[in-house]
Amino acid sequence: MAQENLSVVLHSQGDLRLEKRPVPEPGPNEVLLQMHSVGICGSDVHYWQHGRIGDFVLTKPMVLGHEASGRVVKVGSAVKHLKVGDRVAIEPGVPREMDEFFKNGRYNLSPTIFFCATPPDDGNLCRYYTHSANFCYKLPDNVTFEEGALIEPLSVGIHACRRAGVRLGSTVFICGAGPIGLVCLLVAKAMGASQVVITDLFPERLTVAKELGADFQVTVKRGDGPQQLAKSVEDMLGAPPHITIECTGVESSIQTAIYATRSGGVVVLVGLGSEMATIPLINAAVREVDIRGVFRYCNTWPMAIAMLASGKVNVKPLVTHRFPLEQAVQAFETTRQGLGIKVMLKCDQNDQNP
Amino acid sequence: MAQENLSVVLHSQGDLRLEKRPVPEPGPNEVLLQMHSVGICGSDVHYWQHGRIGDFVLTKPMVLGHEASGRVVKVGSAVKHLKVGDRVAIEPGVPREMDEFFKNGRYNLSPTIFFCATPPDDGNLCRYYTHSANFCYKLPDNVTFEEGALIEPLSVGIHACRRAGVRLGSTVFICGAGPIGLVCLLVAKAMGASQVVITDLFPERLTVAKELGADFQVTVKRGDGPQQLAKSVEDMLGAPPHITIECTGVESSIQTAIYATRSGGVVVLVGLGSEMATIPLINAAVREVDIRGVFRYCNTWPMAIAMLASGKVNVKPLVTHRFPLEQAVQAFETTRQGLGIKVMLKCDQNDQNP
Amino acid sequence: MAQENLSVVLHSQGDLRLEKRPVPEPGPNEVLLQMHSVGICGSDVHYWQHGRIGDFVLTKPMVLGHEASGRVVKVGSAVKHLKVGDRVAIEPGVPREMDEFFKNGRYNLSPTIFFCATPPDDGNLCRYYTHSANFCYKLPDNVTFEEGALIEPLSVGIHACRRAGVRLGSTVFICGAGPIGLVCLLVAKAMGASQVVITDLFPERLTVAKELGADFQVTVKRGDGPQQLAKSVEDMLGAPPHITIECTGVESSIQTAIYATRSGGVVVLVGLGSEMATIPLINAAVREVDIRGVFRYCNTWPMAIAMLASGKVNVKPLVTHRFPLEQAVQAFETTRQGLGIKVMLKCDQNDQNP
Amino acid sequence: MAQENLSVVLHSQGDLRLEKRPVPEPGPNEVLLQMHSVGICGSDVHYWQHGRIGDFVLTKPMVLGHEASGRVVKVGSAVKHLKVGDRVAIEPGVPREMDEFFKNGRYNLSPTIFFCATPPDDGNLCRYYTHSANFCYKLPDNVTFEEGALIEPLSVGIHACRRAGVRLGSTVFICGAGPIGLVCLLVAKAMGASQVVITDLFPERLTVAKELGADFQVTVKRGDGPQQLAKSVEDMLGAPPHITIECTGVESSIQTAIYATRSGGVVVLVGLGSEMATIPLINAAVREVDIRGVFRYCNTWPMAIAMLASGKVNVKPLVTHRFPLEQAVQAFETTRQGLGIKVMLKCDQNDQNP
Repeated sequence: MAQENLSVVLHSQGDLRLEKRPVPEPGPNEVLLQMHSVGICGSDVHYWQHGRIGDFVLTKPMVLGHEASGRVVKVGSAVKHLKVGDRVAIEPGVPREMDEFFKNGRYNLSPTIFFCATPPDDGNLCRYYTHSANFCYKLPDNVTFEEGALIEPLSVGIHACRRAGVRLGSTVFICGAGPIGLVCLLVAKAMGASQVVITDLFPERLTVAKELGADFQVTVKRGDGPQQLAKSVEDMLGAPPHITIECTGVESSIQTAIYATRSGGVVVLVGLGSEMATIPLINAAVREVDIRGVFRYCNTWPMAIAMLASGKVNVKPLVTHRFPLEQAVQAFETTRQGLGIKVMLKCDQNDQNP
Repeated sequence: MAQENLSVVLHSQGDLRLEKRPVPEPGPNEVLLQMHSVGICGSDVHYWQHGRIGDFVLTKPMVLGHEASGRVVKVGSAVKHLKVGDRVAIEPGVPREMDEFFKNGRYNLSPTIFFCATPPDDGNLCRYYTHSANFCYKLPDNVTFEEGALIEPLSVGIHACRRAGVRLGSTVFICGAGPIGLVCLLVAKAMGASQVVITDLFPERLTVAKELGADFQVTVKRGDGPQQLAKSVEDMLGAPPHITIECTGVESSIQTAIYATRSGGVVVLVGLGSEMATIPLINAAVREVDIRGVFRYCNTWPMAIAMLASGKVNVKPLVTHRFPLEQAVQAFETTRQGLGIKVMLKCDQNDQNP
Repeated sequence: MAQENLSVVLHSQGDLRLEKRPVPEPGPNEVLLQMHSVGICGSDVHYWQHGRIGDFVLTKPMVLGHEASGRVVKVGSAVKHLKVGDRVAIEPGVPREMDEFFKNGRYNLSPTIFFCATPPDDGNLCRYYTHSANFCYKLPDNVTFEEGALIEPLSVGIHACRRAGVRLGSTVFICGAGPIGLVCLLVAKAMGASQVVITDLFPERLTVAKELGADFQVTVKRGDGPQQLAKSVEDMLGAPPHITIECTGVESSIQTAIYATRSGGVVVLVGLGSEMATIPLINAAVREVDIRGVFRYCNTWPMAIAMLASGKVNVKPLVTHRFPLEQAVQAFETTRQGLGIKVMLKCDQNDQNP
Repeated sequence: MAQENLSVVLHSQGDLRLEKRPVPEPGPNEVLLQMHSVGICGSDVHYWQHGRIGDFVLTKPMVLGHEASGRVVKVGSAVKHLKVGDRVAIEPGVPREMDEFFKNGRYNLSPTIFFCATPPDDGNLCRYYTHSANFCYKLPDNVTFEEGALIEPLSVGIHACRRAGVRLGSTVFICGAGPIGLVCLLVAKAMGASQVVITDLFPERLTVAKELGADFQVTVKRGDGPQQLAKSVEDMLGAPPHITIECTGVESSIQTAIYATRSGGVVVLVGLGSEMATIPLINAAVREVDIRGVFRYCNTWPMAIAMLASGKVNVKPLVTHRFPLEQAVQAFETTRQGLGIKVMLKCDQNDQNP
């Protein structure tokens, strides 16, 4: 095994460095992974640009990256279900305590959870990385490493659609056609949604959404009235959507989401905006439109792998750019400029395939 | 049967009259009821004082009253499950159409539903009243007429606690100790809540709440900080409450409700305030605290009767004033002044018992 | 409108007749339909051959048929959402009472429900038929009459898969590849099932299942051991299926269903066999494998139409035979012999298209 | 700390011994407990008498006991939420792997779970015992050690009633008034059940049930017809029960449970009988009466403690016999003879209080 462990380390706001770190040793319940593909997430860029996200503040150098897959190269003494050579997708959140949230199956809410590239926990944008074996999931032969890495953003869509209760015949309205809006679209369709309306400020994003299966696209203009927009959505579908998934975090868009949703339906908030929001709460309340947030995801990797292996979902078109790990800064710059959909870093010098 | 049908009719904002109307004939699926006990609801007073509630506007004279019980005096030709002499509680909402909401068991959301004393539908604050037999529920011998009438406000509590998912061992925070806060308290306890904290501006209301089973009472002062109040609630319970039921509609109280609720928990909005509200939406979203409203209730009468008959819930202390129907204006004035908890009008001249 | 109303009437066991009946008048909440396509169901044939199904006994002549679609030719005085010319699919079960089941959204369990071609209620295998307008659903232009008629068997699959809790990534084991097994397959896939194993005694049925999307097919032999068969299913999937849908009613197959299902999973019983069954109940109980039956369906037409309109499900291949209404006896004989999958009767003399 | 660790060890079928074992050392995530009160369960007696339960076979000496509470006397290095002196109730099942069941909140189904006194895992009928700190729950001052020990059987009732979906106003039929039937009764009432019917062969057990809150008691005679018994239950309640909890495992009683339950209701199987059972499966299926088993419990200790602390449930009357640990054999003999309800062993020589 190579002793070199090139890693993408954020030292402080704006100070992103490629540096060599020691190759770690797996603990008894861990595996050592040779990283293969790691996607760049908006949050990685946000830490780079701002040094913090909400209450999570960078206070010491941290490896970035949490959308990842790799190959097992060493196995901890207590690990049974994985062996050297296995190709795995990595779930970045690992509960540290068997607290009430974990015991109840909602471990994403555990306040002490480890999470890759959330301060102070290191991520996996590097050559070698150790992770809890229980949160590494073996990939079938017909699922690529990049698909494995894309399970992370896909999981956001799965968790959002599951919290939304998307089911057979649901009509779904998605606000925002960025990477998260697009995975919500893919998942909603895979869960049986009959029709999806998607909105964005940028027509080129809507073009991608259309290719990925959206039934209706709406180009929004800043200043569009929420109630008028809600009416447009209803007119397109012939009735208000059962479910709205808000992926922008913009206040007026949250307002639109509430006005648009059918009585008895659900608004899921995926996008995050400012701390306080002014919304038509009574409109939601008296029509029993539930408002539900999401925090990351839990219990999504196995079903995501099942979906990818069976071809129910095709995430491959989401990857628009690839860079070798050595060009990480350029890759981050590409993401920062909002070019394409998903930028993938290739960490294995000997295998830069998808 | 007496031909006189004294009725409490609201002619326009501020113009409440007692007048004699004809005794109606029941249709084939209806029963004619001799009314016995009708509670005055805050909404009755609101129509009297303001002539409207939100989009519901009084445009022609309307009989008030929807918290009611009575005795069957005539049975429609197609009615099978009721007979003359049966004592019944009246569910005031009757769906007019077998629409998607009714078919799915959420008929309260049906936009064309008939509802007593919501313009333009007449209520039942009168001597004789016809109603859909399917929405009249026979009272067991050990449930009084007044308990039957109180099923209506109790149903608000049942629906709120059911939407909240109160279950065995839940800790519940109730904002507001008015009539609705109190029925939520009674129901939460009956559903197995282990501890209930309740707040109000008025200490005397909290005294009643304590008598009805609240474990902790907090006197709120205007200007109390939502986060500080949330912290107090957590300190009392030893952990944040699983569920918060907001019964005031005041913006700062809704903020408190969100901050106070445990991650993964539920805030139910029962109180209604202004159209737009500014709330810490991200705090709720990233902790997966769901926000759910209620619109009236559905499918509550049978379980309410079962509760009352088995003694699981005691609503009798809620009745603090009684007036004969002839003194309806005085009774409304009592409610308007916020005296006591529930004012009951006695419509049967020959039986003014509870 | 033609005054002739040719109808397929079962007079007694074995005595199926084509006879002319009067064209009925729609009541205020009904529509008169000119029937277009009506599928023959196994239950129609069963009544013909045996004069009864369980407690439902033919005691007077009854029109057969309940998988149907047609065109509105007359509208009752109170009907608002349909007009003459509308093409509709017919939900054959119409609740007669607003009882606890209907109010709770499970109207299929209402004991007094009207149901086409279940004694003593007439079906719709005829030229003209009146039905509750609320249970007639307008078909979009891109959904054919035959697809409309097939919503009935499709609804059995929807209700079964919904009761089973099929969701994204579920693995599903279906016992039996007859018409009901096939619709369960289609629906399970549309709901996001990642892999479906299906079994049957007849390889030709499994060939159809494969064409419709089954991932694995198993030809069962009479006498195969339930535990051994369960093991085969687990081996194919790599793990026991989350869900098993039993469509044969055969005791040994029910046993297989229980042994095969993953701990914490669900067995849904769709097929009906003998009154008493001997099953490994403890095996199910201690692994918390729930056993759930289905009785017809409720709340399925709107989502079925949404699925068909959006192309999520293709039921067209299920129709293997067509006969004009005049040849109903021959059509019934075809179904009785088990030829093909679904036999469709064409009731409109001027339009025998799909 | 005393070095003596008197333990109740089952060496083989029929060979129960009191012997001294070393005091164990807690691992980093464990606590060492000085045991206080341990109830004897039917399964303890069954292992003693038969050397096995189903597939669980005693192959080496095993300490018995799993209904237990004690005091923390030593704390592992990584434990944060407990300290020396804390009084705790012990959840006997501790998942060994973060497998799919644990991650989904159903860790009781994890096939590799550790469970006290299930071969080969030692129980806690001894003086000193180490246990995972995460599965030790601190008792409030107003909850006794014996109440803490009784949380284990109470948890069976909680899990059964939760799986049954008992809710406000439910009517519940419980078959069998042994210790498990009685805890189901207590929990059903605490969850809001309006009426409970309970049956048993022995009138003295029904007398206890009545004292604990059962509304109706039925003395069953061997040979009573299931359908006739079901009819009696319906007559008592005025309608079939929403839920039936079967605690006997007797085939005819399971049949009664199915016939008795209301359409759309639930039968929960708690009692375990023979491997195969002959039941009226179609009757359950076509009325959508779900059949659900239970395997132990999960996520019950916190809510049980909340119930006990708030006085919602009173389990104290269940303890009918107490013996010091030294008299364990006599205590087991008492349980074997079916005397009283619950026999409690007192493990702390200096504190034999409840």
